[in-house]
Amino acid sequence: MSAGNQFEVSEKVIENPDSISIKHAIDANVGSDTHIIFPLKYFEAQSGQDDESDGNITVLLILNQQINILPNLFAKLWSNASLKVCADGGLNRLRDYDSTSLTYIPDYVVGDLDSAKEENIKHYQSLGTKKVLQSSQYYTDFIKALSLINAFFNYPDIIRDIDNIDSLDELEKLEDEKSASSNVKVKTLKIIVLGGVGGRFDQTMATINQIWNLSSRRPHLHFAILNPEHTEMIVLLKPGFNFVAYPRFTPHEEIDIFGIVTDKSRPGLRNVGVLPILNDAVITTFGLKWDVENWRTGLTTKMSSSNLQVGNEGFVIRTDKHLFVDFEL
Amino acid sequence: MSAGNQFEVSEKVIENPDSISIKHAIDANVGSDTHIIFPLKYFEAQSGQDDESDGNITVLLILNQQINILPNLFAKLWSNASLKVCADGGLNRLRDYDSTSLTYIPDYVVGDLDSAKEENIKHYQSLGTKKVLQSSQYYTDFIKALSLINAFFNYPDIIRDIDNIDSLDELEKLEDEKSASSNVKVKTLKIIVLGGVGGRFDQTMATINQIWNLSSRRPHLHFAILNPEHTEMIVLLKPGFNFVAYPRFTPHEEIDIFGIVTDKSRPGLRNVGVLPILNDAVITTFGLKWDVENWRTGLTTKMSSSNLQVGNEGFVIRTDKHLFVDFEL
Repeated sequence: MSAGNQFEVSEKVIENPDSISIKHAIDANVGSDTHIIFPLKYFEAQSGQDDESDGNITVLLILNQQINILPNLFAKLWSNASLKVCADGGLNRLRDYDSTSLTYIPDYVVGDLDSAKEENIKHYQSLGTKKVLQSSQYYTDFIKALSLINAFFNYPDIIRDIDNIDSLDELEKLEDEKSASSNVKVKTLKIIVLGGVGGRFDQTMATINQIWNLSSRRPHLHFAILNPEHTEMIVLLKPGFNFVAYPRFTPHEEIDIFGIVTDKSRPGLRNVGVLPILNDAVITTFGLKWDVENWRTGLTTKMSSSNLQVGNEGFVIRTDKHLFVDFEL
Repeated sequence: MSAGNQFEVSEKVIENPDSISIKHAIDANVGSDTHIIFPLKYFEAQSGQDDESDGNITVLLILNQQINILPNLFAKLWSNASLKVCADGGLNRLRDYDSTSLTYIPDYVVGDLDSAKEENIKHYQSLGTKKVLQSSQYYTDFIKALSLINAFFNYPDIIRDIDNIDSLDELEKLEDEKSASSNVKVKTLKIIVLGGVGGRFDQTMATINQIWNLSSRRPHLHFAILNPEHTEMIVLLKPGFNFVAYPRFTPHEEIDIFGIVTDKSRPGLRNVGVLPILNDAVITTFGLKWDVENWRTGLTTKMSSSNLQVGNEGFVIRTDKHLFVDFEL
């Protein structure tokens, strides 16, 4: 902030006790630029689970990275997803994870299929999984999977004819055409991406790049990344007032929800990081151990990592730019 | 690039065979803005290993993240480092990794020591490790460790008196004062950071943020991060011509160097990612499977991940801005 500004807004950091209510902040700020994120939507079977009305559809996308999350959590994710898709080698990881190889049968495996083992493809095909080969090197397996997912819910005629498309890139092209020309109101999809961060570093950054590009091109696709190496969720926040509606639970409540008490960096307190990866931003937060006010954050200056959620109802981030946030489950 | 530019420079992507020489590119480009990175410096005992002259000092810094690298590689790193430092909980990770708890004895454990287990501190102290408690929450354990490392080689009077400094933040303050006021020529230090990427996502981004800030404030500290979850190195490249002098080896040569043939994403070809994390950049590369020319790259546009080294002598990245690059060993 230059000294010449007429209205100087000073930065502040406030250290909070380990448990606070943020009701006042929510009530005072909910407005037209409000975005509410419900992390539990991915885990809790909703009352109308089979109701695929707008906003109620969750999809599980498994990327090619070792799955190392608690079995109960995985079971919840799986049973709550309307569609399960493996991107190429994600199929191997699923089979490695599922010792019986019979519990979790994905709906699709898609990609150039240079990583998925032939024996795994055969195994899952015999159990009903559909294989969609798209061998173009122009698109990543991640993009291919998302074309399939979007088509599945929004352009069913592509899916009806999927056995007849070419094996190069017809799926991506058809989905792209439909997206550009269709005036059908598309359904919002909540896609949980298992993998893509926490492994090789260029893959982690490529995932961020692709989540950004896809969120811009297909705003009805809402993503949450689940780090398979550490039980945390990563989401993209929009400019405005973002409320992560994730109450703090007692151990008893956590067992009800997840079947277990989840790992956390500090007992009872979820780790939170506010990540200005795409650009610098000015943020104000409510419900963190170290709340900030009018705080300029950026990768080349300062950022709030290893923060903790102390807000009982969740936490709030007001930002002037897009931001990523990660938080433990 | 706007269409109105007088000199339009067009972007190009060139697909190379799996083995090429990049001698011509090196010879033609070496000049005043040339930076050469020698990854093997961290692993190969140099002929003058005990010679701590400028540029010959390597330091191993272990952060608090599970160590999951090949034992032979670790042994080489260890024996080649002039100083070994654990940042707080890094001490626990070292002990977990070293089943005997007797092979690897670090010189220092430093930090607020809220993570290092008391029994581990006692164990290593009894074997000669020195404990430096700095409990200020204003600095991270990473920064504290780097203050110690810099002082160790460049301001030995701080180290001579280290038992008498306060346990809050005197180390960091003294090192900062000396850095600001000293007109002694400081020694260049090559610091390999084990950990900090590949685990929790906010920690990964915080590592990037801290490496950037420290590289700017202390340009004589040169960093290489070693991902403990996947055998790859991450370095910060400067604007100009960067030559990663890392020849391709035969399996036989790799066994000579590392004691094993290292894991790679593709047999015989190292994965490379060019990562414009801090800012967009325009790059030209030589020695990658998909070389680019005058290529604008950024996290919100396009980036070159999952590329491969095909240059026999190494690979080259010319960039107009700082960049991170990761490559497999």
